[in-house]
Amino acid sequence: MNGNDRDSHAGARPGGGAGRSAPLERKADRETVRRHNLSLVLRAVRDEGEATRAGVAARVGLTRAAVSSLVEQLLESGFLSESGKTFSGQAGRPGTVLKVARTGVAGLGVEINVDYVSVCVVDLAGTDRVRLVEHLDNRGAPPAQVLGRAAGIAARALASAEEQELRPVGAQLALPGLVSRGCVRQAPNLGWTHVEAESPFAEALAALRPGRAALPVRSENEANLAALAELWFGGLGEVRSFLYLSGEIGVGGALVVGGELLRGAHGFAGEIGHVVASADGPQCRCGSRGCLEQYAGQSALLRAAGIDENAGAPGMAELERRAAAGEDRAVTALGQAGLMLGRVLSDAVNLFDPQAVVLGGVYRPLLPWLSPPASEELSTRVVSGLWPPSSPRLRASSPTADAARGGAALVVQDALTDPASYANGTKSGEV
Amino acid sequence: MNGNDRDSHAGARPGGGAGRSAPLERKADRETVRRHNLSLVLRAVRDEGEATRAGVAARVGLTRAAVSSLVEQLLESGFLSESGKTFSGQAGRPGTVLKVARTGVAGLGVEINVDYVSVCVVDLAGTDRVRLVEHLDNRGAPPAQVLGRAAGIAARALASAEEQELRPVGAQLALPGLVSRGCVRQAPNLGWTHVEAESPFAEALAALRPGRAALPVRSENEANLAALAELWFGGLGEVRSFLYLSGEIGVGGALVVGGELLRGAHGFAGEIGHVVASADGPQCRCGSRGCLEQYAGQSALLRAAGIDENAGAPGMAELERRAAAGEDRAVTALGQAGLMLGRVLSDAVNLFDPQAVVLGGVYRPLLPWLSPPASEELSTRVVSGLWPPSSPRLRASSPTADAARGGAALVVQDALTDPASYANGTKSGEV
Repeated sequence: MNGNDRDSHAGARPGGGAGRSAPLERKADRETVRRHNLSLVLRAVRDEGEATRAGVAARVGLTRAAVSSLVEQLLESGFLSESGKTFSGQAGRPGTVLKVARTGVAGLGVEINVDYVSVCVVDLAGTDRVRLVEHLDNRGAPPAQVLGRAAGIAARALASAEEQELRPVGAQLALPGLVSRGCVRQAPNLGWTHVEAESPFAEALAALRPGRAALPVRSENEANLAALAELWFGGLGEVRSFLYLSGEIGVGGALVVGGELLRGAHGFAGEIGHVVASADGPQCRCGSRGCLEQYAGQSALLRAAGIDENAGAPGMAELERRAAAGEDRAVTALGQAGLMLGRVLSDAVNLFDPQAVVLGGVYRPLLPWLSPPASEELSTRVVSGLWPPSSPRLRASSPTADAARGGAALVVQDALTDPASYANGTKSGEV
Repeated sequence: MNGNDRDSHAGARPGGGAGRSAPLERKADRETVRRHNLSLVLRAVRDEGEATRAGVAARVGLTRAAVSSLVEQLLESGFLSESGKTFSGQAGRPGTVLKVARTGVAGLGVEINVDYVSVCVVDLAGTDRVRLVEHLDNRGAPPAQVLGRAAGIAARALASAEEQELRPVGAQLALPGLVSRGCVRQAPNLGWTHVEAESPFAEALAALRPGRAALPVRSENEANLAALAELWFGGLGEVRSFLYLSGEIGVGGALVVGGELLRGAHGFAGEIGHVVASADGPQCRCGSRGCLEQYAGQSALLRAAGIDENAGAPGMAELERRAAAGEDRAVTALGQAGLMLGRVLSDAVNLFDPQAVVLGGVYRPLLPWLSPPASEELSTRVVSGLWPPSSPRLRASSPTADAARGGAALVVQDALTDPASYANGTKSGEV
């Protein structure tokens, strides 16, 4: 969950340490095997939606008896639920239907962005069960105040979750900036530099929930979490490698390679908002000039269309309305932004060779105007010639996949990976 | 070895197929375990340079008896050699010294570039044992003729290898273009489009070596192979994630993440030569405008310095001489190229967050002039503020790490991974 674990993978290398891996026959002890298989069975049921013991056994390659024993433990610890109805979708004797529980272990995701806070609670299936969004201006406010307000919204969401008998086992903050080991190194559009976000948020939340166990809190770049949500819930099909852009006040970006986030050596990869669209362009808050954000960020879009750049979500709705009505200035503004998007995306595609580019945030409803000029640039500038103007590989993000949900699902993922540690919705050291 | 296996990795994903992995207790059969451990022991000796059986046992975590049996097999099949002298560098009873054999299994690397062909044979230790470089103009010649000439050079290198009792078990072609599944999709500076390179090269080589077993041939982008050579032999220390640029007639690029090549969805990642340095700049052969190659490729450098752009290696030596003498036009040309390099590298660093950037090919001797303006751009434009002007993370490639050596070492890597298949220097289906 932290910023640079991607880099800890050791590759095979003739000149280096490939020989340092452990022998294959090193034995996993019985307890480790059981914990692993518990997770295997739980995830099989989650992936299928509904499953029988026999179906799970066939899918994971364990014996029916082993699966039954594991299912018992998962039922007892509240991860699975059983329904009386029989299941006729598979060959053989019909069995009782298993599903992941709709109560118990859950995850809390909290996206703190420049002009809104969005909080969500997901259950074991990854379903969005509570959602609370507040539009407010976080710019200029001291970080402690912003984190305190977010904790207040999170506390209200947790109260709703409890009414649904959901027990979030952790919180994941999503922040619009460079996040590394719990520290927001830079979030230019919030005006944050070197802000520790996790502890202040955890303490503010704990203060609002006296007598309750404190939630462990982690933080991550918002575009990274939105990209994970897209990967998990976005209906991408066979696409496992993509570039994700999130248009907000800033432009966030993330790279997913083979189903994994590419975080970079310091956790700062994917900063596509600061790729240069025009080297001598306007000064950017990051210190550079002509960054994509200066042409295709929310403020730049509004300003170019002649709308108050601080108008936020209503302003963006107005921009969409004017473009749909064919208003010149709006259409020109979106055409220019699309061109700059296409230019920068071409650079990124030439460097990463993804299967698709996904545009989220404010870009989603604007795609009809942004896509044609962007696709035209891509078809000219992508060197492989694999990006013809009609390519379907420039696509809108799913409306139900966002950073808050990605964050909440990341919390749940930990529980799915080792359910034995989370018996009855509370994390424990022992089974 | 092919272009897109990176994408076959399944990541953990709550909404997807993480549950499809096999149960942990699936048993590896005895034969598989022995083959694995054979490789483990061989690589341990290779990594150490010199080792005793006891040292290897301690390192890999197998019993002394198991290691002795594996070492016997590796000695018999010609992978290891034993010297009579005792080894006193470790505690305990001195043992016989083991080394990887300097004869037998080897790899052949063949770099076909625009104005040269470089062939090398490496032994099991990755040492460059034969090197044959011919400067010739491959532009405009039909691909079959270029591949035939390269096969002729390779045949001469193989004859030298045989005199040293080295038996290459495969050949790896390194090509300056987009290579996918054995096909050169585009190599603009060679003028190649959709050229199948492997079979014609293999056939030409076989025709020159009647009565000898045909070598399996693979092909890969040259910058990818040069980056692997840098990773394995470049003395990068703790650096496992880096961006590699190879300045030639074109500008090749490669991305290494956590010790592995990032190849992209189609094997085309790393095309940094076609990242846009100036959107309205000169027309590039790739179809785009203002690509880095148009400012910092070999021809562009020579032209800007007032030297014949087709002067090749002697021209580059002349450019270096003039710059060292402080000649205005040469210094200005390199300053401008360094600025454009820095601009494009900033984009790549913002997207990829590497630990280092390595400049190879013609850039290596020019770094004193290219580095200051490039570093200045990086310090202004890299958003994390992690790239101060004095950063040591912009570095020259190792002079002994190039695409031909990387390719040859990649061939050897296969043998190191499963030595049982290569008994006595010949690949077989059985142990």
